[in-house]
Amino acid sequence: MRKEEALKRLKEIDTEVLHLSHILGVLSWDQEVLPPKGVEGRGAQIGLLQRQVHALITSDELGEIIEALEGSELSPCEEAQVRHAKRDWERERKLDGDFVQLFSETTAKAYAAWVKARQEDDFKSYAPTLETIITLLQEKAEALDHTGEPYDPLLDLYEEGTTTAEVESLFSEMGLFLKEILDELGEDEVDDTFLYGKYPKENQEFFIREVLTNMGYDWERGLLGTATHPSTMTLGAHDIRITTRYEEVSVASPLFSAIHEGGHALYEMAASQGACQGSTLASGVSLGFHESQSRLWENMIGRSSGFWHHYFPRFKELFPLQLERVDEERFLKAINRVQASPIRVDADEVTYGLHIIARFELEKALLKGDLKVADLSGAWAEKMEKLLNIKVKSDRLGVLQDIHWSMGVFGYFPTYALGNLYAAQISAIMEDEIDLDYHLKRGELAPIREWLKREILNYGSLYKPKELLEKVTGSPLKSSHFKEYLTKKYLER
Amino acid sequence: MRKEEALKRLKEIDTEVLHLSHILGVLSWDQEVLPPKGVEGRGAQIGLLQRQVHALITSDELGEIIEALEGSELSPCEEAQVRHAKRDWERERKLDGDFVQLFSETTAKAYAAWVKARQEDDFKSYAPTLETIITLLQEKAEALDHTGEPYDPLLDLYEEGTTTAEVESLFSEMGLFLKEILDELGEDEVDDTFLYGKYPKENQEFFIREVLTNMGYDWERGLLGTATHPSTMTLGAHDIRITTRYEEVSVASPLFSAIHEGGHALYEMAASQGACQGSTLASGVSLGFHESQSRLWENMIGRSSGFWHHYFPRFKELFPLQLERVDEERFLKAINRVQASPIRVDADEVTYGLHIIARFELEKALLKGDLKVADLSGAWAEKMEKLLNIKVKSDRLGVLQDIHWSMGVFGYFPTYALGNLYAAQISAIMEDEIDLDYHLKRGELAPIREWLKREILNYGSLYKPKELLEKVTGSPLKSSHFKEYLTKKYLER
Repeated sequence: MRKEEALKRLKEIDTEVLHLSHILGVLSWDQEVLPPKGVEGRGAQIGLLQRQVHALITSDELGEIIEALEGSELSPCEEAQVRHAKRDWERERKLDGDFVQLFSETTAKAYAAWVKARQEDDFKSYAPTLETIITLLQEKAEALDHTGEPYDPLLDLYEEGTTTAEVESLFSEMGLFLKEILDELGEDEVDDTFLYGKYPKENQEFFIREVLTNMGYDWERGLLGTATHPSTMTLGAHDIRITTRYEEVSVASPLFSAIHEGGHALYEMAASQGACQGSTLASGVSLGFHESQSRLWENMIGRSSGFWHHYFPRFKELFPLQLERVDEERFLKAINRVQASPIRVDADEVTYGLHIIARFELEKALLKGDLKVADLSGAWAEKMEKLLNIKVKSDRLGVLQDIHWSMGVFGYFPTYALGNLYAAQISAIMEDEIDLDYHLKRGELAPIREWLKREILNYGSLYKPKELLEKVTGSPLKSSHFKEYLTKKYLER
Repeated sequence: MRKEEALKRLKEIDTEVLHLSHILGVLSWDQEVLPPKGVEGRGAQIGLLQRQVHALITSDELGEIIEALEGSELSPCEEAQVRHAKRDWERERKLDGDFVQLFSETTAKAYAAWVKARQEDDFKSYAPTLETIITLLQEKAEALDHTGEPYDPLLDLYEEGTTTAEVESLFSEMGLFLKEILDELGEDEVDDTFLYGKYPKENQEFFIREVLTNMGYDWERGLLGTATHPSTMTLGAHDIRITTRYEEVSVASPLFSAIHEGGHALYEMAASQGACQGSTLASGVSLGFHESQSRLWENMIGRSSGFWHHYFPRFKELFPLQLERVDEERFLKAINRVQASPIRVDADEVTYGLHIIARFELEKALLKGDLKVADLSGAWAEKMEKLLNIKVKSDRLGVLQDIHWSMGVFGYFPTYALGNLYAAQISAIMEDEIDLDYHLKRGELAPIREWLKREILNYGSLYKPKELLEKVTGSPLKSSHFKEYLTKKYLER
C-alpha cells in the first residue's frame, strides 16, 4: 500500500470511529430519560455500534495500513495516530466481535438492574448481574494479557502505561499520609449546617452559569443539563455537554459538581480544537489526566480562599437570607470541611483517596477470584471501617453507590485518585508561573485556563500520559505534591 | 444460497437496519437541544448512519438473498419482508452511497439554516440552501424513475402505491367540497377568546397525561416531552416518545397536539408488538395511514361532543377561573371553530386540506423547475389568497413555517390530507361496529383503541397500504367519506 493511500484510509477510518464514538455519546446522554422498557433495545443499539467500532479498529486492512505507515516520514499527529491505531489494533484483535457485543449489551442492561437495586437497597437482586460482569471482565483481562497481573490490561485501558504495581506504590504512600492528616485534624468543630438550607434552584443555576462562563465554557458548543449523576459527555467535536444535580441537600454539591465537570469539558473543548483536531486524538489523553483537570478546577480553584474572596459577595447577593449570618471565612471553612462519610462523591479532598483505595483493593480481589460477589457487601463494610473508621449502614450507602461496576468498568476508579496526584503536581508548576491567588482574588480565571490549554489541553492525546507529565512538570508522577498541598491547606492554616 | 441460510441472513440484516433506524431516532430526538456549533458534527453522524442503512439494503448479498427466497414457502410476514426488501433494494440501488450521505448531511445542516431564517423572518438567507435541496431532490427523482411524473417516486417513498395522478384526483374533489363548506359556513360568530387566557402548564400537562393514559399510551414504553414541533419518534421497539409544546397562546393547541401524537404513538406501540414484531415491518404501513390515526384521535375523538361530555367537567375542575363563564357547548364550539388562518398546524379540519393542496402544487412546480425558489415567496402568497382568501403578512407566517423542505422531504405533505380521507373512511366502518358516542360519553376509549388495533395497527406493514384499506373498509380510498363527515359535523349541527 502506498503511503499516501494508507494515510488517507487511516484518516477515513479514524473519522468513522470518531463519529461512532460521538453517536455512542448521544446514546449515553439519552440514557437519563430512557423509558424502562426501552432498556433492552438501547443495549442492542449500543452493542451494534461498539461492534462496529471494534470491527473498524481491528480490520485486516487497518493492519496493512499500520504496516505501511510505520517508519514513514509523518507529522507528529500522524505518527501518534499510527501508534494509537497499532496499540488498539493489537489489543482489540485479542477480543472477538461477539464478545465485544455481548459485553456491551450485558453492561447496557446492567445499568437498569443497578438503578433498581440501588433504589430498593437490594444488593441480592443485583448480585447475579454483577457476577456475570465480573466473569466477563476476567475473560477480557485473560484475553488481553494472560501473562502477568490480570488488573494491568484493564487499568491500561484508562491510564495508558501505568501498571498496577505503580498504583499500589503510589496508593500506599497516599493512604499513609491521608490517614495521618485525617488523624491530625481529629474531630472538627466546623458548623456547615447553613449549607443545607433551602437554596432556590434558579439562583444556584444562575451562579453556576456565571462561574462556568468565567472558566471559559463555550455555550455554543455545549449545554448544562441535570442528571442522576453529574458527568461530561462528548456528543460531537463541538458538542460537549455537562450535567449536575440539584436534588442534593447541600448547596455546595451542585456547584462543585458543575465546576468539576466544567474542568473535564474545558479539556475536551480545547483538545478538539487543538494540535490533532478532527481526529480521535483530539481528546483527553487519559482518565487520570482528565480527572486532574476536573479536580484542579473543583478543589484547587473552586474551594480556594482566593476564588471566594471574589465570588462570595456575588454568592451572598443571590442568597441573602440563607447566608445572613455567614461571612466569607465561615463559608470557606464549611466548603472545606473534612469528615469521613460513606459516599465517595460527597467526600472531601482528604478522605476521597481512601474511598478509591478501598475500591482498588476490592476490584483486584474480585478479578483474581479471591473475593466472591456473595461476600462483597461484608468486604465493603470492612474496608470502610478500616480505612475511614465508619460503619456502613446499608448497601445503598455502600457497595451499591457507584455506577461503574454496572458499566463493566474495572481499573477506572484508581484514575480518580491519580487525578488528584496529577493535579497537585501540575498546579505546583503552574504556580511557579502564575500567581494564582492574585488572579483568583480579582476573579480572573482566564490566565489559569490559558496556561492549562497551552501546556496540556491543546495536545490532546499527542503524547503518552507519562511523556506529557514529564514534559509539563519535568518529573514522573509522585504522591508528594499532593501531600504538600493538603498539608499546607489543612494543617498549616 | 439455501433457504434457511437466506432467511436467517435476511433477518439479521433487517435487525441491523431496525437498530440503526432507532439510533437515527435518538439523534433526531436530541436535535431539540443540540448546541449551535454541534450542527455540522450531527449532520456527519446522521450521514454516516444513513449511508450504513443504504449499504445494508442495497448489498449484493441481499440481492442474492431476495433471489433465493422469492417463490419459496414463507410465513406471511416473511413474504412481506422479502417483498419490502426487494422494493427497497431495487429503489435504493439507483442511488449511490455518496449521494445518500451528501443528501442527509445537507439536510441535517439545512435544519439549522431553516430555524434561523424562520426566527429572523429572512427567506433570502435560506433560499440558497433550499435551492441546493431541490436540486438534490430533482436528481433523486430522476435517478429513481426518469420515465414518468417526477413527483411519483418521491410520493411513493411515503405512500407506497399511490400516484400523483390519484392524489390530484382526490385533492381536486376535496378542494371543491372544502371551499364549498367554507363558503357555506361564512363568517362565524364563535367567541373563542377564553382559550387564549392563562392556563398553568402543570395543569395542562396533568390533563394531557390523563387523556393519553386513557387512550392507552404505555408510559413504560415512552415519555411525553416538549419540543419546538410536536412529534412522535421511535427510538426503540419499546421506546416511542411524543412531544407537545406549551408556549402556544391557545390552551387547545398543546392538548390536541398531544392527542394527535398519541394517535401516532399508539400505532407504533401496537405495531411493534403486532403480527411482524421484531422486524422493520412492525411499524406503520404508510404516512397516510399513520396520519389517519393521529387525525382520528385528534379530531374525530378529541374534538367530538361525546368526548367532552365526559371530559369537560374534569377540564373545568383544573381551570375553574379560566372557564368560569364557559359551558360545555361553548367550549365545544370554540375548539371546533372554522376560520382560515396562515399557519397549517393551527388550521381547523375544514381549511387544513387547502393548506396541503397549496404545498402539493408548489412542490410539483418546484420539482419540475416550473417554479424557482426566488419566486416561491410570491407564489406562496398567491396560493394562500386563492385557496384560503387570506393575505400572507410575512414569510415566517408563510413559506418558512414548515420544517419539511429543510429535511429534503417532498411528497410528504399530501399524506397529511390523505390521512384525513383515510380516517373518515375508517371511522365510517368503525362506527358500524362501535357506538362511538355511547362510549365517549362514558369516557371509554378502550373499545376504539382495541378496534383500531385489531383491524389496522397490529398488522404493521404486513399488507400494502391499498390492500389494508380495502381489507378494513372494503373499498379503495375515496374523498366522499370525509365530505360526509365534515358536512354532518359542520353544516348539519
